[in-house]
Amino acid sequence: MERCRSGLSLSEGAMSRQIKVEAAEIATLRVAAGETLRVVNSLGGQVVDAWFFAADDWTEHVCMSHSRAALRTIRPVVGSAFVTCRRVPLITMAADTSPGVHDMTMPPCDRWRYQQLDAPGHRNCADNLRSALHAAGHAAGVMLPDPLNLFQNSPVAPDGTITFRESSAPAGSYVDLRADRDLIAFLSVCPMDIMPINGGSPREIAAVVLDGVT
Amino acid sequence: MERCRSGLSLSEGAMSRQIKVEAAEIATLRVAAGETLRVVNSLGGQVVDAWFFAADDWTEHVCMSHSRAALRTIRPVVGSAFVTCRRVPLITMAADTSPGVHDMTMPPCDRWRYQQLDAPGHRNCADNLRSALHAAGHAAGVMLPDPLNLFQNSPVAPDGTITFRESSAPAGSYVDLRADRDLIAFLSVCPMDIMPINGGSPREIAAVVLDGVT
Repeated sequence: MERCRSGLSLSEGAMSRQIKVEAAEIATLRVAAGETLRVVNSLGGQVVDAWFFAADDWTEHVCMSHSRAALRTIRPVVGSAFVTCRRVPLITMAADTSPGVHDMTMPPCDRWRYQQLDAPGHRNCADNLRSALHAAGHAAGVMLPDPLNLFQNSPVAPDGTITFRESSAPAGSYVDLRADRDLIAFLSVCPMDIMPINGGSPREIAAVVLDGVT
Repeated sequence: MERCRSGLSLSEGAMSRQIKVEAAEIATLRVAAGETLRVVNSLGGQVVDAWFFAADDWTEHVCMSHSRAALRTIRPVVGSAFVTCRRVPLITMAADTSPGVHDMTMPPCDRWRYQQLDAPGHRNCADNLRSALHAAGHAAGVMLPDPLNLFQNSPVAPDGTITFRESSAPAGSYVDLRADRDLIAFLSVCPMDIMPINGGSPREIAAVVLDGVT
């Protein structure tokens, strides 16, 4: 566990634990109810695929379609509560110092996507999650929950068209996600270097678990 | 099996089989590769939650997030091919005589949604699918594939906001979906009578399997 970086605006006296997550890697973090997970775009421009499972019930995980229905939006903002397939809030976006551009519509990159891009065997977020779930003692099939794609810039035009653009998140910007229940968070630092979403060059992020209200 | 309704514009000599599906019911249909499934909004204004599974591999089913990524839209049109979680096309929208308003972002209604709406025990599309999958010999968990919500009018505004409006599909309008592989289709006639998506009063639809090109 490293010391918190400067500039993270931790509340005075707040306990915290921080990890660095390298490009293309996935981190598994335990976040207790009431704690806040800060996802820091350390170097800027990096998409983070995020999944959240209740620690005591792996059928309770954040579901993007149900969250879209509950929030009535595809664009989360501070205050947005993400719900499970049973429509129970699991995490709430508590702060966001990035431009607020996140994605709730895209699947994770996966081995089949990279085959289509003539890059078979490419590291991918879907297999990252499968490996992390396996390490945690859980099987994962072909269908995975859709991730919350933090910092992903995939705007949906008024006619419904989706485009893939570079992330607009500046270096050091972050999102705070408050756990409404004890949970396990998986953060995959998207390895996409063919499509432009990570500016062509994935890079490290940091994750900080903050003890208490930020 | 009933005779086809008039006005369905069947190709001369085409073999077809038609069923009526009552409000709140779910139909299971086998559609062979090359056949076309016509979903008819018989009385107008009715949403149909549709799922498609490969007949020989139940891990291959239409995935909405992957379809959004493949199609780069949340608004399907004639020619749109819907893909599985392995990004393989399974069905293609071959014709659409409705105004073309369909939804690729919403989950099915479920028991938890109706609990929130003070209607516990309400018939719902998610349990419809679970029952139909069970009848077909397959288990279904809490997480289900997201459906293609035919005729559902849930526009996404430029700021990302989603609203729920009455379906704009006229009586007798239909969508044709061509099977790219032998598949099992599930069509749930959405029983929602609290939110306005079905005009407050769900009503029957028809499904026709057309043998050959329409």
